[in-house]
Amino acid sequence: MFELGVVKRSINRANRVAADALAAFGSATVHEALGRVGLLQPYMRPIYPGAQVSGTAITVLLQPGDNWMMHVAAEQIREGDIVVAAVTSPCTDGYFGDLLATSFVARGARALVIDAGVRDVKTLQQMGFAVWSKAISSKGTIKATLGSVNVPIVCAGMLVTPGDVVVADDDGVVIVPAALAVATAEAAARREALEAGKRAQLASGVLGLDMYKMREPLEEAGLRYID
Amino acid sequence: MFELGVVKRSINRANRVAADALAAFGSATVHEALGRVGLLQPYMRPIYPGAQVSGTAITVLLQPGDNWMMHVAAEQIREGDIVVAAVTSPCTDGYFGDLLATSFVARGARALVIDAGVRDVKTLQQMGFAVWSKAISSKGTIKATLGSVNVPIVCAGMLVTPGDVVVADDDGVVIVPAALAVATAEAAARREALEAGKRAQLASGVLGLDMYKMREPLEEAGLRYID
Amino acid sequence: MFELGVVKRSINRANRVAADALAAFGSATVHEALGRVGLLQPYMRPIYPGAQVSGTAITVLLQPGDNWMMHVAAEQIREGDIVVAAVTSPCTDGYFGDLLATSFVARGARALVIDAGVRDVKTLQQMGFAVWSKAISSKGTIKATLGSVNVPIVCAGMLVTPGDVVVADDDGVVIVPAALAVATAEAAARREALEAGKRAQLASGVLGLDMYKMREPLEEAGLRYID
Amino acid sequence: MFELGVVKRSINRANRVAADALAAFGSATVHEALGRVGLLQPYMRPIYPGAQVSGTAITVLLQPGDNWMMHVAAEQIREGDIVVAAVTSPCTDGYFGDLLATSFVARGARALVIDAGVRDVKTLQQMGFAVWSKAISSKGTIKATLGSVNVPIVCAGMLVTPGDVVVADDDGVVIVPAALAVATAEAAARREALEAGKRAQLASGVLGLDMYKMREPLEEAGLRYID
Amino acid sequence: MFELGVVKRSINRANRVAADALAAFGSATVHEALGRVGLLQPYMRPIYPGAQVSGTAITVLLQPGDNWMMHVAAEQIREGDIVVAAVTSPCTDGYFGDLLATSFVARGARALVIDAGVRDVKTLQQMGFAVWSKAISSKGTIKATLGSVNVPIVCAGMLVTPGDVVVADDDGVVIVPAALAVATAEAAARREALEAGKRAQLASGVLGLDMYKMREPLEEAGLRYID
Amino acid sequence: MFELGVVKRSINRANRVAADALAAFGSATVHEALGRVGLLQPYMRPIYPGAQVSGTAITVLLQPGDNWMMHVAAEQIREGDIVVAAVTSPCTDGYFGDLLATSFVARGARALVIDAGVRDVKTLQQMGFAVWSKAISSKGTIKATLGSVNVPIVCAGMLVTPGDVVVADDDGVVIVPAALAVATAEAAARREALEAGKRAQLASGVLGLDMYKMREPLEEAGLRYID
Repeated sequence: MFELGVVKRSINRANRVAADALAAFGSATVHEALGRVGLLQPYMRPIYPGAQVSGTAITVLLQPGDNWMMHVAAEQIREGDIVVAAVTSPCTDGYFGDLLATSFVARGARALVIDAGVRDVKTLQQMGFAVWSKAISSKGTIKATLGSVNVPIVCAGMLVTPGDVVVADDDGVVIVPAALAVATAEAAARREALEAGKRAQLASGVLGLDMYKMREPLEEAGLRYID
Repeated sequence: MFELGVVKRSINRANRVAADALAAFGSATVHEALGRVGLLQPYMRPIYPGAQVSGTAITVLLQPGDNWMMHVAAEQIREGDIVVAAVTSPCTDGYFGDLLATSFVARGARALVIDAGVRDVKTLQQMGFAVWSKAISSKGTIKATLGSVNVPIVCAGMLVTPGDVVVADDDGVVIVPAALAVATAEAAARREALEAGKRAQLASGVLGLDMYKMREPLEEAGLRYID
Repeated sequence: MFELGVVKRSINRANRVAADALAAFGSATVHEALGRVGLLQPYMRPIYPGAQVSGTAITVLLQPGDNWMMHVAAEQIREGDIVVAAVTSPCTDGYFGDLLATSFVARGARALVIDAGVRDVKTLQQMGFAVWSKAISSKGTIKATLGSVNVPIVCAGMLVTPGDVVVADDDGVVIVPAALAVATAEAAARREALEAGKRAQLASGVLGLDMYKMREPLEEAGLRYID
Repeated sequence: MFELGVVKRSINRANRVAADALAAFGSATVHEALGRVGLLQPYMRPIYPGAQVSGTAITVLLQPGDNWMMHVAAEQIREGDIVVAAVTSPCTDGYFGDLLATSFVARGARALVIDAGVRDVKTLQQMGFAVWSKAISSKGTIKATLGSVNVPIVCAGMLVTPGDVVVADDDGVVIVPAALAVATAEAAARREALEAGKRAQLASGVLGLDMYKMREPLEEAGLRYID
Repeated sequence: MFELGVVKRSINRANRVAADALAAFGSATVHEALGRVGLLQPYMRPIYPGAQVSGTAITVLLQPGDNWMMHVAAEQIREGDIVVAAVTSPCTDGYFGDLLATSFVARGARALVIDAGVRDVKTLQQMGFAVWSKAISSKGTIKATLGSVNVPIVCAGMLVTPGDVVVADDDGVVIVPAALAVATAEAAARREALEAGKRAQLASGVLGLDMYKMREPLEEAGLRYID
Repeated sequence: MFELGVVKRSINRANRVAADALAAFGSATVHEALGRVGLLQPYMRPIYPGAQVSGTAITVLLQPGDNWMMHVAAEQIREGDIVVAAVTSPCTDGYFGDLLATSFVARGARALVIDAGVRDVKTLQQMGFAVWSKAISSKGTIKATLGSVNVPIVCAGMLVTPGDVVVADDDGVVIVPAALAVATAEAAARREALEAGKRAQLASGVLGLDMYKMREPLEEAGLRYID
């Protein structure tokens, strides 16, 4: 598990249509559709607001202060992938900047999710390359120690298997197992349809207490109204 | 204190005119006008920059991972209120999203201050609904356990009594006790008037050392100038 | 070291041309050009995105909850300086707001770097005054205890000597010792020239693995490709 | 609220017998007996293991880096009191050491609970004076700015009113409102009696699943057993 | 992945002899023997010093503020197991105390590793039941929402599969995949034998520089000695 | 500043008698005697309670995840030294264990102060080797990248120059510049003598309010007593 010094070249990417479709629902709806699992820790934040993407995961396991494997990962990227990177121990260094982003874009990557730091954030925003990270730091890294590419990793508290779908927006990052991508996209579409109706009711002044029929269970739970 | 399972329907809201007027002064000036008390911990941040509001507090005491009481609170909102929510133990889950925001707006709420997480932040910004929170998280919540509405709570280190005035902007969130709202608005106005004169002097190059007559007390305190 | 109660009036500012030129390279390139040292801890963040500055350091050593020395520092500012402030123990109070900023601008300061909090951030952005800080807080400070001005300080983990060059942007804050300013500016220019060529290659699809000739050392380190 | 510059001399201490009796139950049992409210944030830790106390609260509101009010508080201590101290903004300085502890002991204090730092911890342990704090720090404080004594304060997220009962042990610190002290002691005694029986059953190998009759509700909630 | 509402009854426990033998080597040696992977984040700390255990993992996935699944897990424990628990979002509540510990001991559990809080720590130490946790908190939990037992979980940043070996001591907690338990125990024994010889040399004053033959590579890397 | 790849062999150690004598006063008294400067951040904690040492600083600048320079530092240690280590970016890895401790002890070192992690803490306590660190972690390090030995470093927020006196105990770690060691030892002795008299008065029930003559300044500052 979490083997070092390995690059897996063939991975089973999730269904392309579903992987692409999930972005539109956003991470909150996808998280619900998946059964309320799969969310990375909320310290993972976009480096600029507004980006909303989904794609298939290329995974990278890095060593502290060393981004050698990011270059190895670049070769494994295909159109529609999102690179997800973890480090073997907590580190805030800037593992990724505009040069690597240029290379990743040329290979077809849509975004980077990294449980560490990045730099050149202004340029990355100008390029429109989306990144979710734990930190921003000017401190670069060395290229001396092996990690791995396309092994299962834990990124910000969540297991990520190569080929899983990554859904990320201003609310956070959700991982959808490849085998559940199609079903999750369908569930998300159903959920979104339901929410539209609820939104209209709530906007008209109907209370959630009534719309969700909560008054009785609240009373049973013992809620007391006083003046 | 911090009783669970209670909803108080009648609360004493602060003077409306003062509650509305305080927004314009901003949280820093109001904090000074109040005698430098009342500030929530600085980890409470706006989910998007630029919002500046004031209003009367509806309070909510939540359980970890459970937003049932947010729906109960919605019914108690009146025009000009700001909902202030605390959790009985630290939690970063997303207790609030665009559906609840739609309901809160329909009831007349101006903003939410929550010592936990929220989601749908892009939509909330598009709606213009202001939120100050500890976290942003796609993770939703269940509806299973009672908390309370309109009991005194501690939010991010500060006591909030229902009806108090909440003043929030990019600098943070200040709570003004209802009984002090009018006096605080007057003190804030006086302070702002004084600051205008000072700003002009400082802009012309006058030093604070001279404007505030600090040179003598600094010398008495033993400050030494060396070359 | 870190003497209290002292103001040093004459400091050796770094070469003006180099101090001014370093801003254009950005903190990441300057950090590399300096040999990958000099970076403040990454918790130091700009209060609004997009600012990019360099200048010569005026240093301030503050006491917790007390900004008296900021006024003393104002008098020592010359055109092209950046004020760098540390506190003798961790504090998030708002030591600096629009009045002090007005005074600093009138004296010629370009920015503030402070290992504590600031306030009036909306006004500071409107003024175009750049600040990097640990926190944002409405809580003001008193003026009762001596610190020092223009003594060496440690700010966010880095030693800052008065007259050093400060380079700050969205990626963070780097300190360049005054004696190395010219050499660092030259090294940064060389580095930037090199990167332009690399960027073009990477954009055309060339892999870093090939451009940096990494395949052989990776194989020697034992990297295994599997299918 | 949280007024500065005030010392209240007469406070309503909780029932003495109940205040003294609560220590024996420990903070976890008291927290349950009180309805699962009243707990300070878990970052409050004992400076040495094993202490277990209860007593009536003397409250202190301090300024950052300033312990002047601790001396003012000493005069208000009576036999059986526990001093509970908060700071107007986050601070880790060492507000309290062996000299103040000597004075507090001479006045009859049983312990200190402080949302800041203390020092001389080895001597405090030798004296047997119990302290729960956020930090340990050698950094002393000044005596320059007024706070308050015996006003309601928020300490580590919990409201503390002078005269409330403080119950503290290795598990944390719980505040029992004075008016609820007797009832809480009775509830704690009942709870403890119940637990003895449960402990015996569990020790004999009976499962909580059976003892608490959880199997049916778990099945109703949809729990699936697989092999 | 991380499915909710499931209890897996049959798991593949690691080789018993290896699982039991690993405790004696300690977490640091086992971490090295495993190839420097498998360590939980260092915020996981023992609740009292000195415990050193190994055993096979029973996994529990909990909801925030809800310990229902701990009772479900108790039934799955066999002699020699260690319970490893994660929560679906960050939580510091006290999920576990002396009653559950009594039950776990009766079932044969050796320890608990939990990415949340525990309570009754003094009693747990008296019982000799070892716990590694993120927090200590008097705050108990409810029993209302399903999680899972014996599904793969991520605990403090590391993937744990039911049946894996858990090795924990004052240095931290390491997870050894079941399939690697025997090989890791052998590698740990070899490593320990090697270290005994090195320790003797170092104790006699031989420098690591010479023992590890580092002088030449340091010189090649460019290390300069100055006076 | 903070040059990489350098080992300075000749350093100016502080006066031996003073360096040895400072331990007895403890870090809090020394911090006061030095003018309330020199304290490392309070997150630096002893790995076991009760150690109290002083000695002359050998400094080490490390790279993240790499302890190569610790071996280089060992050769520079003389009897009575304390090794003080910093890392170029935040890292919690275990840089130091019982083998290095054996070597350090053989060279005459009294303790280690490291702004990172250590391991083998149980063995270190059995050896009686004192360590103050930011973290405890089983994760070992590689030996691949140059740092420096005996250059000025910043450790946990404080500048440390080789030869400075390090004073450490349960309250924290203080750095005394070599040139001030003798004067600081004298000031600490005077301070301790003064405190003995104060302690006796306070123990007899005299209030600090009277002993320090605070009543008048408190009244002047506006303190109000109410009933």
